[in-house]
Parts: sequence; structure tokens; C-alpha cells
Amino acid sequence: MKRAGELELALAERPPGISLQRWLCGELRAAILSGRIAPGGRLPSTRDFARQQGVSRGTVLAAYEQLIAEGYLAGTTGSGTCVVPNLPVAPPLADTTPPPAAPPRLSRLGRLLADSPFASREGRTTARPFSPNQPDLQAFPRAVWHRLSSRHSRTIRADDLGYAEPAGDPLLRRAIAEHLRYAQRIACTADNVMIVGSAQQALDLCARLLLDAGDGALVEDPGYPGAARLFALSGATVHGVPVDAAGMRTDALPPGRLAYVTAAHQSPLGGTMPVDRRLALLAWAEAQDALIVEDDYDGEYRFDGAPLPAMKSLDRHGRVLYLGTFSKLLFPALRLAYAVVPDWLVEPFAAALSLTCRHQSLFQQGVLAAFIDEGHFARHLRQMRQRYGERAAAFEQACRAQLAGLLQVAPITTGLDATALLPAASDDRAVVAALAQWGIETRPIAFYRLQQPAPPGLVMGFSSFGEPAIRRGIAAMRPVLETLLG
Amino acid sequence: MKRAGELELALAERPPGISLQRWLCGELRAAILSGRIAPGGRLPSTRDFARQQGVSRGTVLAAYEQLIAEGYLAGTTGSGTCVVPNLPVAPPLADTTPPPAAPPRLSRLGRLLADSPFASREGRTTARPFSPNQPDLQAFPRAVWHRLSSRHSRTIRADDLGYAEPAGDPLLRRAIAEHLRYAQRIACTADNVMIVGSAQQALDLCARLLLDAGDGALVEDPGYPGAARLFALSGATVHGVPVDAAGMRTDALPPGRLAYVTAAHQSPLGGTMPVDRRLALLAWAEAQDALIVEDDYDGEYRFDGAPLPAMKSLDRHGRVLYLGTFSKLLFPALRLAYAVVPDWLVEPFAAALSLTCRHQSLFQQGVLAAFIDEGHFARHLRQMRQRYGERAAAFEQACRAQLAGLLQVAPITTGLDATALLPAASDDRAVVAALAQWGIETRPIAFYRLQQPAPPGLVMGFSSFGEPAIRRGIAAMRPVLETLLG
Repeated sequence: MKRAGELELALAERPPGISLQRWLCGELRAAILSGRIAPGGRLPSTRDFARQQGVSRGTVLAAYEQLIAEGYLAGTTGSGTCVVPNLPVAPPLADTTPPPAAPPRLSRLGRLLADSPFASREGRTTARPFSPNQPDLQAFPRAVWHRLSSRHSRTIRADDLGYAEPAGDPLLRRAIAEHLRYAQRIACTADNVMIVGSAQQALDLCARLLLDAGDGALVEDPGYPGAARLFALSGATVHGVPVDAAGMRTDALPPGRLAYVTAAHQSPLGGTMPVDRRLALLAWAEAQDALIVEDDYDGEYRFDGAPLPAMKSLDRHGRVLYLGTFSKLLFPALRLAYAVVPDWLVEPFAAALSLTCRHQSLFQQGVLAAFIDEGHFARHLRQMRQRYGERAAAFEQACRAQLAGLLQVAPITTGLDATALLPAASDDRAVVAALAQWGIETRPIAFYRLQQPAPPGLVMGFSSFGEPAIRRGIAAMRPVLETLLG
Repeated sequence: MKRAGELELALAERPPGISLQRWLCGELRAAILSGRIAPGGRLPSTRDFARQQGVSRGTVLAAYEQLIAEGYLAGTTGSGTCVVPNLPVAPPLADTTPPPAAPPRLSRLGRLLADSPFASREGRTTARPFSPNQPDLQAFPRAVWHRLSSRHSRTIRADDLGYAEPAGDPLLRRAIAEHLRYAQRIACTADNVMIVGSAQQALDLCARLLLDAGDGALVEDPGYPGAARLFALSGATVHGVPVDAAGMRTDALPPGRLAYVTAAHQSPLGGTMPVDRRLALLAWAEAQDALIVEDDYDGEYRFDGAPLPAMKSLDRHGRVLYLGTFSKLLFPALRLAYAVVPDWLVEPFAAALSLTCRHQSLFQQGVLAAFIDEGHFARHLRQMRQRYGERAAAFEQACRAQLAGLLQVAPITTGLDATALLPAASDDRAVVAALAQWGIETRPIAFYRLQQPAPPGLVMGFSSFGEPAIRRGIAAMRPVLETLLG
């Protein structure tokens, strides 16, 4: 009697490097999914199939068992091996139509998330004058880091490889708290320090922990777009608050639950917020039951005196979250930053971290803790403060000598970047595009604009370029600016 | 003439290790903020103040300049140095009242975020039998990792220290794509692979990218609470879909935009989803314009044959996001995981990563890429599959020998954990608590329950304990279970 399933399957040739069984399973799956063996169809006996395909019976048996485990085949004693009867081999899977043209839609939030201000294909390239927000990577003590890193990886115990506290390595948190108590006069303990992968991650959590739809979120305008975009995700109403040479203006603050300020070095206009505005903003937060996020991305680099104490040092009622990042102080690829959160926010923040990421890589945290504890961090900051100060002076001087009347640079007191104002009514995006054609990288103030008018100008990094490169770069700008603005 | 500001300030003694100028600045700030020097009040001349305090005039001058920079003082030539007139030294800052009793309220989302199912103070401790979700950390080849890590840190160039692509190190993405093409038959390229810090991070982004308020999100019930909690953050309606021994039941799926499945090894009940259900779920996703998240947290450890191809391998229309983590395959502290996303989701996912975190630490990515490329990863998986398989068999056998009638363990085919059912109507939380008193760690199935009934039972890890420890642990359970259930 001829068996119902007496089919002789034409199988594709076995590719090199693929085992017989793997090949056989793959061919059978494809035959079932494409409908060449119909649901319910009976397969040849292992003996027959082995003979047809010229393989051993054991190989066929193992393939059948694998496909039974995967639910393609059902084996019943006596009646042989069948394709599972009701297998839903739907036409869309059985034919070869291409995917539908319209991809699934994103959520409202998803469309906002997909509109990131950061490059999605940022490559590893050497920074060119005057690309902003770049510490001098050449100056980082890689040999020291290697030594600490190697020592750390050599001494890791098995118990160090498991899950750890969401808030981070206790040694690193203690080292950061000690540094901040001294350098920023922030009265905090290690418990207040939350280790995150980046300032962005901390801002994202702040927005989600604090903002309901319709709540006010105050940002500097012009200001850092990476913060405003995240606050908008919560459905909050983002208020762009005007900025002048002394940072965010505090004379007419709208209501809100969160305010974001770069008090030490306003991004992008460069001002330092004086104490009267700091106190006014703190009083606003108290009256509004709001949180202030103080993003101190490069305030440790203060050239004309000691770094100013953080606004957080004035915070008596747990209204300020202080944010720092090692991306600017050490190097971006490290991906470690920290938030000093008020006592009442410690548990919610740690819980939110545990739910959305568990915790950061322990390895780099351990190396960084040693780097701080053994004095390398303080030494590096000291050296970079000196170096960046010299470059700031060279940059200012070159601008005055070469670009007077074209570009107006305020005295640089802080940070990695200078802001240079263009003549009123010029188009800073066009200037940036023209400079880029001559190999000069700058960023327009327009990039930072939200709702308020902003003066046209360029944000220019000086910190990662030597003085000759700075002078050459500034000299190269002159003909371009003269042509555009003349 | 006596100067208006002729005050003699009583300053606190200078603590050891603090410079004169730092001390003087701190004391002056405190005096101003506390109202001891009123807004508008004039300070002594530098000469007088230096004499009063017994310090050099240069020190006082530097302190005054620092406080002028900070906005506490205003200096006008001729009329001396004054406290800024309108400084808003508000009573809440000037007195010493304690912080208000009620901390600022969290957002609706914030309250959900703060309710994480993970311990917020998880310490680094050695796992005890039978704590689940633990790879064997003792067996990880730390010496090999150290060698690769040290080599990598020695050869880092300055250009490697900057920002990089949000989606991750191209070498690592390629290595993962190659591994998945072979091991899981997933047709993907490096472009589809997104490096994240954890499965949690990827789930968080999926939920935000896809789910609007009111959308349906389908989860297994009982199922992994870390996923359901994140989906709820979007305001989605989380549907707990019943689970049986073959995973999520697909006979009555509610409408939705996202479905989360652990197809290879259902967490917690342990079943493997057969191909008919996989195809039914794919058809559901196609009809609903939905995304399926296939979380393959430990499916690579399949003991009774080759690992099953991922559900993603059946995905012809970009409906499946495949999620894998190195936390279970290597070690949790590494904090690296990956999502294989359909083509249409590549750009939105990368943009969302860049906005919410920029990218993961490059260092560990580089070490891991070498670990995979040089064959250590495949070797480790092979060795662990063997080892965990032996332990699974020892665990099963010990349960049968010691706990028959008390605990019913299904054959263990996959993963790091076994699920053992208790007699119907027993209280698994009470059993877990009682076992914990005897030093036995287990997790109740109730921990995974959402809306559907679930059988009482225990999730027990066997993978990180040697066979003697397994036998001792099982033997120690017997009297406890007899007392509770007898």
C-alpha cells in the first residue's frame, strides 16, 4: 500500500559548513511553512526518507525529534509522523509578497522620541576646530586609566559579576560626594548620589518622575535642546524662559513643576547666574512645589577664580537636583554621569533606575572610583583648567585681532565653549553652513532656540584645539565672514 | 567719619585644611544669606577687614572679587563694596526651619516608576540555592576577560574616547548578528542590532515608541513583571493573556499594539511555544498592526537538542523585535543587551536611544566584541549548556527522590530555572517565606501573576549551584514542605 504521505521532497543542496541535521531541519521547516507539505500531511518513514536523501536513519530521526519539539511535527506510534494538523500557515507567510509598504505607526511619544537632536550615526572622528562640547581627548591620561583598568579587571571576584545596587557602586558614590562637598560646597552624602549613564538618562527620569501632562517645565531659551525635548515627552507644557548675559531671567517665571538651568555656564549664551537669581528661582520652586534641575555640565572649568559653589549649595528644602557628567570632565565614551538628588527623591529615583535599566556597568564605575580616590581626577581637572584657560585666552585674543566687527566674543570665564555674537539680523545657520564648507565647525545659536527671540551667533569649542590650530581656524574664518557679512 | 558698613563680623574659626580665602568666602556668604549683613549693606574696606580678621589685604581682595563674581557683592569705585541691594534673602532661607513635612509629589508616571519590582538595595552577595535567574558566576572565565580587557584598554586611541553611534559599536553589532544568524536563524544584519544596557532599557523604549494611552499591551500571565510594569507606564491597557504548558495561549488574543512573549522558555511556567502558536501570534500582529517583543533571556541554554530557532526567524513582515541579554549568558554586571529590530524601527529606535541615553559605554562593547570574535563566547555557551544540563538533571532527580508528592517538577528542557508546582490551593508566598527561614531562596509564581489565575508554585534556579549543593538544598526543603503541606 502506498502511504498517504509518500512524497519525495526536493531539498536544496546543503551549504558547506552546515551539519546534515541542521540542513534537514531547515529544509523541512521551509517545506512546511511554504505549504509544500500541507498541515496534517504525513512524512515518509525515517527509513524511506533516509534512503531518499542518502543520509543515515539516525539523522532523520534526530531531525524529526527536533521538529516535534518545535511543534512542526506530531509523531504518533503506529501512524508515523505528520505535520501538525491545524498549523496556521497563513497566505501572508506562505507566499512571497514583500512587506507592506506602510510600517507600523509609532505612538505620539514615539514620534517625539524619534526626533532626537543628536546625530543617530555619530562616528568616531577627530574633532575639528571649533566643534563644541568636546573635552581634549588627546590630553586624557590613557596610560593611567589603562593601569587602573587592568588592575581592576585582574582583581574582580566572581561575586562582583552579579547584579548590584541600582544607584551605583557605593565606592564611586562616596568619592563623588566627597568631591562635591569640597568643590561645589554641596552638603550631600553618598546616599544622595545616583550613578547614571548620562545626563540624558537623568533628565529623562526627572521628567517622568515629576511631570504630568499639562504641567509646566521651564527651560532656558535659548537653551539645551536635549532637555526640552525630554520634558516634552511627558506631555508637559515647555516654557522657554528668556535668557540674558546673567542666565535665565527670574523676573517673570511662569508656573511649573520643574525648571532646568545651566546656572554655572548658560548653554549657549555663556552667562553665570548670580546669587540673586538663584535665590529667586529657589523661592519660585518652593512656592510651586517644583524641582530645579541644575545641569553643571562644564562649570568645574572656571578660569578667573575658584569654581562657583553650585546652586545646590543654597538648597535647604530639597528643591534642587544637581547633575554632573564625566563626559565633559573626562571623556564621553565613558558614559557615566551622576545626579545628586534631594533626600525625598532618593528612593523613587533608585526605583525608577532599577525598573528602566537596573544599573550601570560596574566595571567602569570601579575604575573611575579608583581614578578619583587616587588623586588622578583632581590632577586632571587642575591640568585641564590651566590648559583650557590658556586656550580660552588665545581664542579671545585671536578673535579680537582677526574678527573685530564681525564677531563679538564675551570674556570667557567658564567651560569648553565660547559664544560669539554675529551682527544683528544675520542668519547664523547660513554662517555655520558657509564655515562648514571651509572646514570650520561651529553651531548656530538658532539650534538652541525654542520660543523666545535669540541673537544670531556661533557656539564654538576652543578646549580641544592647540593654540596654533585656534589661530589658524580664526584666520580662516575671516574671509568667509567678510564675504557673508560685509 | 564712621563708614555705614563699619561692622565687625564675628567669623567662625577656620577649619583645618581650608585655605584662608575659601574660609573667608564661606563665612561672608553665610553672613549674607542669614541676613547678618543686610542686602545693600556696606562691607569694610579691604584694609580694615584685613586688619580685623588678621589676614592679608590680598586675601580679602580675592574674596571680595570671588563674591562679586558670584553676585553676592557689588563693587563700585569710590563707594566701596556692598551686598547686592535687592538680594532676595527670603525668610525660608534666612531662618532655620526644617524642610516642609510633605515632599514634592511625584507625577502619576513617577508613582508607577517608583513601584519597581526589583530590589532598590540589591547588594553583591553570593547566590544561595535556589535563587533564580543566576548564571554560574564562578564558571565565568575571568582570566580570559581580564586579558581581553587589559589588551583593549592598552590599545585605546584618543579618538575612541569621544561620542559614538547610539546603536552601539559596529564590531559588536556585527558579531551579534553573525551569532544570531547561526544560532537562532534570524536573518538580520548588524544594522538591525541595537546595543542597550539591559533588556529593561529596550522594553522601556519599545513601550514608549509603540504604545499610546489606551492601547492594548499583551503580556503572559503569569509572566515577567518587569515588562508589564513598563508597559503600564505608557498608559496602555495591559492584558494578561493566559499561559499553559505551551506558553501564551493564542486562541483568544485581545486587540493590542504590542505583545510580549518569552517563546523559548516561558517565564515563569517554563513552556516552549510551539510553531502553531508562534504563527498565530504573528498573524495577530499583522492584523493588529502590532509589534511582538520576543524576550529570549535564556533560550540559548536548551538541553535536549539544538536551541530552537527564534520566533523572529519566522518574521517576514517586520513584526518581531528579538531581545537578548548578556546578563544571563555571561554576567549581569556587564550591563549589555541587544535588540534585533525590524528595518522600519532601526532609525526611530536609534534616535530614541540617542535622546534618552546617547549610547552605552564603548569600552565593555569592545571587550565583548573580541570575546565573541575570538571564540570565547561560543565556547562558554557550550560549556555552560553542558554544565547546566547536568545540574538540571541532578535537580530533577533530587526532586523526584526527595519531594515526590510535595512538589511537581516538569522536565527541564531550557534555561537557568525550574518551575515546581505545589499542591493546588497551597499558598506559594507562605511556602517561599518558610523556606527562606531555612536559608532556601525561591520565588513564588504569585510574584508573576497579573490578572489570570496561576497555579501555586516555586521558581527555583539550579544553574549556579553544584550537584552536592543541589542535593543538600532539596533535602533541606523536605521537612519544611512536609510541615507546611502535610
